[in-house]
Amino acid sequence: MTTTHSATSRAVQLTRHAMDSLEVVQLPIETPGAGQVRLAMRAASLNFRDLVMMKGVHGGILPLVPLSDGVGVVEAVGEGVTRVGLGDRVCPIYAPGWWSGDPVAGITGKALGGDTHGVLRDHMLVAEGDVVKVPDHLTDVEAACLPVAGVTAWSALFAYGRLQPGETVLIEGTGGVSLFALSFAKAAGARVVIISSSDEKIERAKAMGADMAVNYKSEPEWGKAVATLTGGVQLVVEVGGAATLAQAVTALAYGGRISQVGLLSGIDAQLPLRLFVPKSASIHAVLVGGRDRFEAMNRAIALHQLRPVVGETFGFGQFTEAYQALIAQQHMGKITIDFAR
Amino acid sequence: MTTTHSATSRAVQLTRHAMDSLEVVQLPIETPGAGQVRLAMRAASLNFRDLVMMKGVHGGILPLVPLSDGVGVVEAVGEGVTRVGLGDRVCPIYAPGWWSGDPVAGITGKALGGDTHGVLRDHMLVAEGDVVKVPDHLTDVEAACLPVAGVTAWSALFAYGRLQPGETVLIEGTGGVSLFALSFAKAAGARVVIISSSDEKIERAKAMGADMAVNYKSEPEWGKAVATLTGGVQLVVEVGGAATLAQAVTALAYGGRISQVGLLSGIDAQLPLRLFVPKSASIHAVLVGGRDRFEAMNRAIALHQLRPVVGETFGFGQFTEAYQALIAQQHMGKITIDFAR
Amino acid sequence: MTTTHSATSRAVQLTRHAMDSLEVVQLPIETPGAGQVRLAMRAASLNFRDLVMMKGVHGGILPLVPLSDGVGVVEAVGEGVTRVGLGDRVCPIYAPGWWSGDPVAGITGKALGGDTHGVLRDHMLVAEGDVVKVPDHLTDVEAACLPVAGVTAWSALFAYGRLQPGETVLIEGTGGVSLFALSFAKAAGARVVIISSSDEKIERAKAMGADMAVNYKSEPEWGKAVATLTGGVQLVVEVGGAATLAQAVTALAYGGRISQVGLLSGIDAQLPLRLFVPKSASIHAVLVGGRDRFEAMNRAIALHQLRPVVGETFGFGQFTEAYQALIAQQHMGKITIDFAR
Amino acid sequence: MTTTHSATSRAVQLTRHAMDSLEVVQLPIETPGAGQVRLAMRAASLNFRDLVMMKGVHGGILPLVPLSDGVGVVEAVGEGVTRVGLGDRVCPIYAPGWWSGDPVAGITGKALGGDTHGVLRDHMLVAEGDVVKVPDHLTDVEAACLPVAGVTAWSALFAYGRLQPGETVLIEGTGGVSLFALSFAKAAGARVVIISSSDEKIERAKAMGADMAVNYKSEPEWGKAVATLTGGVQLVVEVGGAATLAQAVTALAYGGRISQVGLLSGIDAQLPLRLFVPKSASIHAVLVGGRDRFEAMNRAIALHQLRPVVGETFGFGQFTEAYQALIAQQHMGKITIDFAR
Repeated sequence: MTTTHSATSRAVQLTRHAMDSLEVVQLPIETPGAGQVRLAMRAASLNFRDLVMMKGVHGGILPLVPLSDGVGVVEAVGEGVTRVGLGDRVCPIYAPGWWSGDPVAGITGKALGGDTHGVLRDHMLVAEGDVVKVPDHLTDVEAACLPVAGVTAWSALFAYGRLQPGETVLIEGTGGVSLFALSFAKAAGARVVIISSSDEKIERAKAMGADMAVNYKSEPEWGKAVATLTGGVQLVVEVGGAATLAQAVTALAYGGRISQVGLLSGIDAQLPLRLFVPKSASIHAVLVGGRDRFEAMNRAIALHQLRPVVGETFGFGQFTEAYQALIAQQHMGKITIDFAR
Repeated sequence: MTTTHSATSRAVQLTRHAMDSLEVVQLPIETPGAGQVRLAMRAASLNFRDLVMMKGVHGGILPLVPLSDGVGVVEAVGEGVTRVGLGDRVCPIYAPGWWSGDPVAGITGKALGGDTHGVLRDHMLVAEGDVVKVPDHLTDVEAACLPVAGVTAWSALFAYGRLQPGETVLIEGTGGVSLFALSFAKAAGARVVIISSSDEKIERAKAMGADMAVNYKSEPEWGKAVATLTGGVQLVVEVGGAATLAQAVTALAYGGRISQVGLLSGIDAQLPLRLFVPKSASIHAVLVGGRDRFEAMNRAIALHQLRPVVGETFGFGQFTEAYQALIAQQHMGKITIDFAR
Repeated sequence: MTTTHSATSRAVQLTRHAMDSLEVVQLPIETPGAGQVRLAMRAASLNFRDLVMMKGVHGGILPLVPLSDGVGVVEAVGEGVTRVGLGDRVCPIYAPGWWSGDPVAGITGKALGGDTHGVLRDHMLVAEGDVVKVPDHLTDVEAACLPVAGVTAWSALFAYGRLQPGETVLIEGTGGVSLFALSFAKAAGARVVIISSSDEKIERAKAMGADMAVNYKSEPEWGKAVATLTGGVQLVVEVGGAATLAQAVTALAYGGRISQVGLLSGIDAQLPLRLFVPKSASIHAVLVGGRDRFEAMNRAIALHQLRPVVGETFGFGQFTEAYQALIAQQHMGKITIDFAR
Repeated sequence: MTTTHSATSRAVQLTRHAMDSLEVVQLPIETPGAGQVRLAMRAASLNFRDLVMMKGVHGGILPLVPLSDGVGVVEAVGEGVTRVGLGDRVCPIYAPGWWSGDPVAGITGKALGGDTHGVLRDHMLVAEGDVVKVPDHLTDVEAACLPVAGVTAWSALFAYGRLQPGETVLIEGTGGVSLFALSFAKAAGARVVIISSSDEKIERAKAMGADMAVNYKSEPEWGKAVATLTGGVQLVVEVGGAATLAQAVTALAYGGRISQVGLLSGIDAQLPLRLFVPKSASIHAVLVGGRDRFEAMNRAIALHQLRPVVGETFGFGQFTEAYQALIAQQHMGKITIDFAR
């Protein structure tokens, strides 16, 4: 059932921890071993983590095929493969082997595009257990947005957040995770309040379903403003970290939960215990999620025909432009790469 | 702040465990003590349990003011009352003192309309901790449907069922709990499959949002039919008990959960372990729920402007007709009593 | 079944928010109403919260019978009481009405010795649902230590901490909650590491079962020291708050949990997200606990014949000395009052 | 770091679904690929499932190297292996890829000794993620008892059972899972009541720590007897299935849980809903467990220096005798194979 190839195909490689070291190389097209599948990759998307890995902040292998998030079609299967078949359109999962439940120590250390080669290549081998079928109604570029931003939002809301219909969720900003969280929270029957520094982004978020919003530039004490507006929120998708945690605690209702996604700021946060303890509050760190959550998310995406927000799409050769767009953060929605362009 | 009354007002009393012993009596209008409120009752609804209590199957006090479910307006408050104020429209909770979490031993033994006087009277005293404000958009008769049927459905779906958007729920029949479950499951972004013996009721359930249905009269092996139709369900709201549990297990997907509401049949159920164990399934008994779930439910009802399905409404004096309608089960929706009629 | 009294009996009252306003008064001995019991109080214990209430930091009623923690014997029962009988030795629970599960908003606002009269009196009325029988092997003074310090430790370890045998728990200091936590964690088959500023207290904690210890005075970076010693801890009973949270996060193993008991410092804590998020950690605030946890704790105390550590015991009239001993913190173990002295 | 071998070594193979088809063959000693390790196997143990697989009740590959449970020493490591090193003594996990959390569909379908070759051979390759280091104090034969019987008992008590100190656990019989459960429950500070048909086995269980026992042969209504003796149990480790479930429900206290391990009887069980629902009870199926639970269990085994109960030990060539001993069930404790004999 497998095929052999002597041909090579395109891959992008990072050879030093610097953006200008990114280059297109030719890599051999490999034959899947037992339990493996080979994907013909079609699209990829970028996350903030990809900048961190490019800069080598946490090490990582070199040369490295970057990016963790992509989608491809199964074009060859190794011996004994049963979970997927030829022609299935799948995403590799972020952390190979994370199939269910909470993460175990070390599992995200081998995530794609870091210490394991990523998806920015025409063909890749993946263990059959490490892929997830994607909803049919999504374009390739949309499907490529799911693995990190989508699953992280799902974990934040449902695995740790235990969101119930009628509850109010505070979502910070309009980045990749936040827009997914907005979409999922509305599908789950929750009320959503969003904060942003831009009235224009607030309008777009409302068009996507946000019920209420606070502009945190004009309301530096936005935690209080959110509490007043909503009566206190049951859940916060906390992506800001150092700059936002104390305000998030202020916004919480009694018994409120915080899903702590953000660790980007690099600075320690203030945790106002004088509010946190009497509110019987809790905080849980969120680290993407495993295959089971990815599949649960896809089921909801399919049922509700949800679509990720795509900000900009580049061609395979425009990877530098894609990274620059990620840095510039001008657009609302994911930065993506369409391999067909 | 309290008022004294020497006047009396109407109450219905069961004097023997027989329907024909129900009679209207005059009871004194009491003054609320510390921490109590007095409600001017406006409406009530009937549940299957009220038949059981009438027949004295599980004992219960005599004479008894029957019915656990009703709504009234706070017309007098005792010393130190802060949770509610004059004019608030509230439901007494099913089991006094059950304010949060899972039930503790004995707590449902003092539920209203059983070992404690119920709501079928013009005025009643309740501890301030034992009432819940109801959503404004509901009529009195609609609000009176919430305490048992609503909260039981909420517990089944969210407390024990941990329902997530995109999951599929199997709901059995179109009784009070089932129709609430349908409404809540749709608000929560789930897919709903319903079983019924009546194509007409199936049509009505679909009009209310059910995605799929199986007529269990024409499909006695409906568990298999549901599994085929849906790919297996994540959750069952099991109200049938002996007659349905084995089929419900058949309908489950891997990892599926059963919320066991029904104990009505009085006959032991078959549990097919040969399916149950390999599916990694679970069953949790559901006993209504406490004040915290009632309030969480009301928040969702208000946000989504949901309305209970009222089948028939009788006047205060037509209590016998109400019981007979409950026995006859001709209508889809709750049997209610409007005290203003 | 109830008895009437025209007699009065001793009670201590706080008349201003100052220690020197504490005085013994005579209060009438009341007759229990329906669902109430009257206790002949035998012993009480003090918690840090009692200092806070005395100073009026969070308001509270005046005059106030202080102290939340005590034990007494049921000497009269009102109509319909079934949970306890004459002669039963019971503790009133900390927050009336908190019978199960997580706390609901406002419930600790009416805790004894704050906005409701406390236990420092010869006789008190309590709702039958608000008392818990205590293990027979405990002295009165020991039993009086349970309601806040014991139940808080239990909540921290088992309700939020989900402690399993073989896990390592970090316990901070040797205060009331910490010594209970040490005792319960050992009974649960966990390994315990303790921090203290005193080598002498460390020795005593080891004699009580602590497996390892770090002196935080000689090891200011004690979080790292604990992590090295233990390989990282699964759970922290965090009583220090501002001064300790960051070190506690450092001590955590992957997936570790923090039960945040302490809010005493009044200063905001630092939460090092750069450690917290990659460790997939979590923090849950702990607010004592309800009747169900109290009963579960008592079951374990009885089975393992555990005994609270009593530091000093004063007579009923020595309440000022008891408060001063609480402030001085010279002793390891609870400050108690024996009404028989 | 890896070594090549042209040599072969012993393996037992099942060539038909019949015991007399078991034979010793020579299989090539393979070189570990990337991420794999090769184990020099030292001991194995048998479970009831091995009989089921031998008979081919659920299919399975042929020829098959049987048995899922064994222990070996890492003697060669493939590229990139970091979780374990040469000389580590490890057990392969039951279901390859089950690293954390609840099982996902299909994962136990590829468990060792069924659809994947098992451990009854001198050398085997395993993915580095699929092994677990074992406590030093255990002999090889003892360590070989852990993977199925140990982890199943752990899951039953702690993953699904959420056992707390002071609770009472009912353990059925003295088979492999039950004896592990007894040992773990005592380490966790629980009270244990055991049922058995043999007074001699009851004595041995008591010597191992069981607090109470009922002989189910002399007490056919043993559920009631257990309830009377204990006041009702919080948890049942239900291994009997059809023959025992109804009695187990009878033995439950209010809020009690059943961990349903047994599916062996092949006959449907009776579930007495008239008891189950009013007790607010629950049942959860237990399917062994993943690597995270195995590691958590080993931590407890090491801390408490626990030892599995070994019933009989055979040499590598005595596999037929081992199967016969499993069938005969004459001994209390695990049937094991010591490869060094």
